[in-house]
Amino acid sequence: MIAPSSLELIALRGGLGAVPGVRLAGVHAGIKPRKRDLALIAFDTPQSCASVVTTNEIKAAPLLVSAAHLRESPTMRAVVCNSGCANACTGERGERDARATARQAATLLDLIPAQVIVASTGVIGVALAVDRVQRGLERAVAQLDSGAKAAFDAAEAIMTTDRVPKLAAYAFYHQDRKYVVGGIAKGSGMIAPNMATMLAFIATDFPLSTVALADTLGGANDDSFNMISVDGDMSTNDAVYAFAPPSTSSGQAVPAAFVGAFNAVALDLAKAMVADGEGATKRLEVRVTQARDVEQARRIARAIINSNLVKTALYGEDPNWGRIVAAAGAARAQLDPHRWSLFANGKPWVGVGGIELLSEAEAHRELEPETVLVELRLGLGQAQATGWGCDLSRDYVRINANYRT
Amino acid sequence: MIAPSSLELIALRGGLGAVPGVRLAGVHAGIKPRKRDLALIAFDTPQSCASVVTTNEIKAAPLLVSAAHLRESPTMRAVVCNSGCANACTGERGERDARATARQAATLLDLIPAQVIVASTGVIGVALAVDRVQRGLERAVAQLDSGAKAAFDAAEAIMTTDRVPKLAAYAFYHQDRKYVVGGIAKGSGMIAPNMATMLAFIATDFPLSTVALADTLGGANDDSFNMISVDGDMSTNDAVYAFAPPSTSSGQAVPAAFVGAFNAVALDLAKAMVADGEGATKRLEVRVTQARDVEQARRIARAIINSNLVKTALYGEDPNWGRIVAAAGAARAQLDPHRWSLFANGKPWVGVGGIELLSEAEAHRELEPETVLVELRLGLGQAQATGWGCDLSRDYVRINANYRT
Repeated sequence: MIAPSSLELIALRGGLGAVPGVRLAGVHAGIKPRKRDLALIAFDTPQSCASVVTTNEIKAAPLLVSAAHLRESPTMRAVVCNSGCANACTGERGERDARATARQAATLLDLIPAQVIVASTGVIGVALAVDRVQRGLERAVAQLDSGAKAAFDAAEAIMTTDRVPKLAAYAFYHQDRKYVVGGIAKGSGMIAPNMATMLAFIATDFPLSTVALADTLGGANDDSFNMISVDGDMSTNDAVYAFAPPSTSSGQAVPAAFVGAFNAVALDLAKAMVADGEGATKRLEVRVTQARDVEQARRIARAIINSNLVKTALYGEDPNWGRIVAAAGAARAQLDPHRWSLFANGKPWVGVGGIELLSEAEAHRELEPETVLVELRLGLGQAQATGWGCDLSRDYVRINANYRT
Repeated sequence: MIAPSSLELIALRGGLGAVPGVRLAGVHAGIKPRKRDLALIAFDTPQSCASVVTTNEIKAAPLLVSAAHLRESPTMRAVVCNSGCANACTGERGERDARATARQAATLLDLIPAQVIVASTGVIGVALAVDRVQRGLERAVAQLDSGAKAAFDAAEAIMTTDRVPKLAAYAFYHQDRKYVVGGIAKGSGMIAPNMATMLAFIATDFPLSTVALADTLGGANDDSFNMISVDGDMSTNDAVYAFAPPSTSSGQAVPAAFVGAFNAVALDLAKAMVADGEGATKRLEVRVTQARDVEQARRIARAIINSNLVKTALYGEDPNWGRIVAAAGAARAQLDPHRWSLFANGKPWVGVGGIELLSEAEAHRELEPETVLVELRLGLGQAQATGWGCDLSRDYVRINANYRT
């Protein structure tokens, strides 16, 4: 058998469960009625770990405790993540509960507590039922397994209003050896510009230093999770954690194939979140091209996908292109009002100077597909960025008006 | 008769029509089917004029033309404002059309075109039907009148999805003479964080220099229109224009009674916009108190009133206070997560450290009234600010999904 070229990616089933050395479980601990609500991820060997967490000034207790663990321990061995309770705005008790969770998992897996990452998602301001977590962890440890079924259960256990579990995995070759990057995630809510929690756990069997892993995660995050979420800065609980076996070589060059696989996993998970946006009936892909620099393109793309008026127009298949352009202008990213042009699914829609190139009926037809691609050319340079959003439907309001009660 | 104390305000009917020397009309010009769609405001004498306009990088043609007029002419004599067409993203033709409108009004009223402010609201990207504006202006000039009826017609003519015309007027006394500040406005849409156009025209018979008028307008704007709209920076067409007879005295101290009346008019108009938010069923008043400074309080209040998750929870009367606090944290205005406390309609709701002081049922009851007052105490200082918002209902989505088609 000939190994594929080093930049070729092979999509795999099973997400995190496809990564050698990773075992998972997802169980019903009783935090939520009936549904699975507790995921456990265990690594056979200690892992380098890097994270990107919310910039919200009110951080949930598990984020604070996990950050302390990352400072205390150079490597990680497990993740505990519950749904049904965010353990945010829970004061000192919240931190005690998050620490207790890590201790419970450490005891059951024979680790030290600082080797455990904890994460939570769900309602804010409610205390975590640590006794239920304990019973759930006992069951989860017994069920730990590799492969797609276990990863599916774990991905399901971290869901809140998500409709489907989110998994992604890619294999790549490096120096004739095959490696895997895999992840699970939860998103939903409308993601930005609000507070629905986004969580992702990504692992690989490719050895990396913590620094190299953090660089890769940062880069992937900018083009994936951050492009569905304004600055990635909203929820009290948002976090992405990445794991890799520690590399023994220092000053390591990160191979392009690994970065490609990591980016592909992050992008697949991010796009799955958007596709599963609360009440979403359509997806919107916004490409901002001919930008002066990537930051300008990103900022404008995010402004467009986050506009309620663009989202509702998409839901109604209303070709009100002025809303797209007005959202771009409101981003204050120094666009030139005399140079932009707009494309719908590759067709010229509005030319420079605001000239409509599609009739109302033609433009309406371009908004009918389930996925709509809008390109805004700024006419200023060579840089580009893509953002992914979804429409704002009446179901979004229904779901969010009664989330808790 | 004894004149009231100089700080006492007397609410008047008629908005802009209550201001001596102001005549108005609102007519059907045919830009929209059937409804009034063209307002004309004429001043008996030349006026100082100050403005606050959108910071959107894509500015509608009438904004650009009015800005040019303000540079060319030291005083203004008239305003033409149409609904049904924003005249935005209309290129060079848009500016020609806006200039033509000013010329038409100037000819009919025997002014120079640079003495005319033009404004538009409605769909973006559609050319203004200047022939219809011409016919409408002819009718409007014939109908120009002072008083409540004329002001009501003009306020109605600038409405888009507004359900009610918005007018406010207050009288005040200065050195035993009575003066009036009055205005009309249109808002609707969800205002921030999006692009629904906000327009307001405020006039007074109290003589002021342009500088003093601009100072007063700036101050009033910060506590009114800007507190219902993130940075006031969104729509392509947003504008507030203020008018006053020019003052002959230089270095004039602006009397507190005038500032009070001006602020009251701006605040009434801003609150009327929120109360009339598209599909809104409830109002939310957010007071951020014990802030380090006013800017911190404003920033957090705006973040809360602009959160879709807070808005939908309010619609569902769901006492999910975590969304309010998470929105505050996302504002990144340096709040202290260990010091805040939350009040609903004056009752302690959540204490320091995230302690719930109202039961779920009690908190739910506090969200039932049509107007809900939330106070977030930051525990950091003495400053405060208030923001006004409304809920996000299914009707919002219905209205905005089919605005144009």
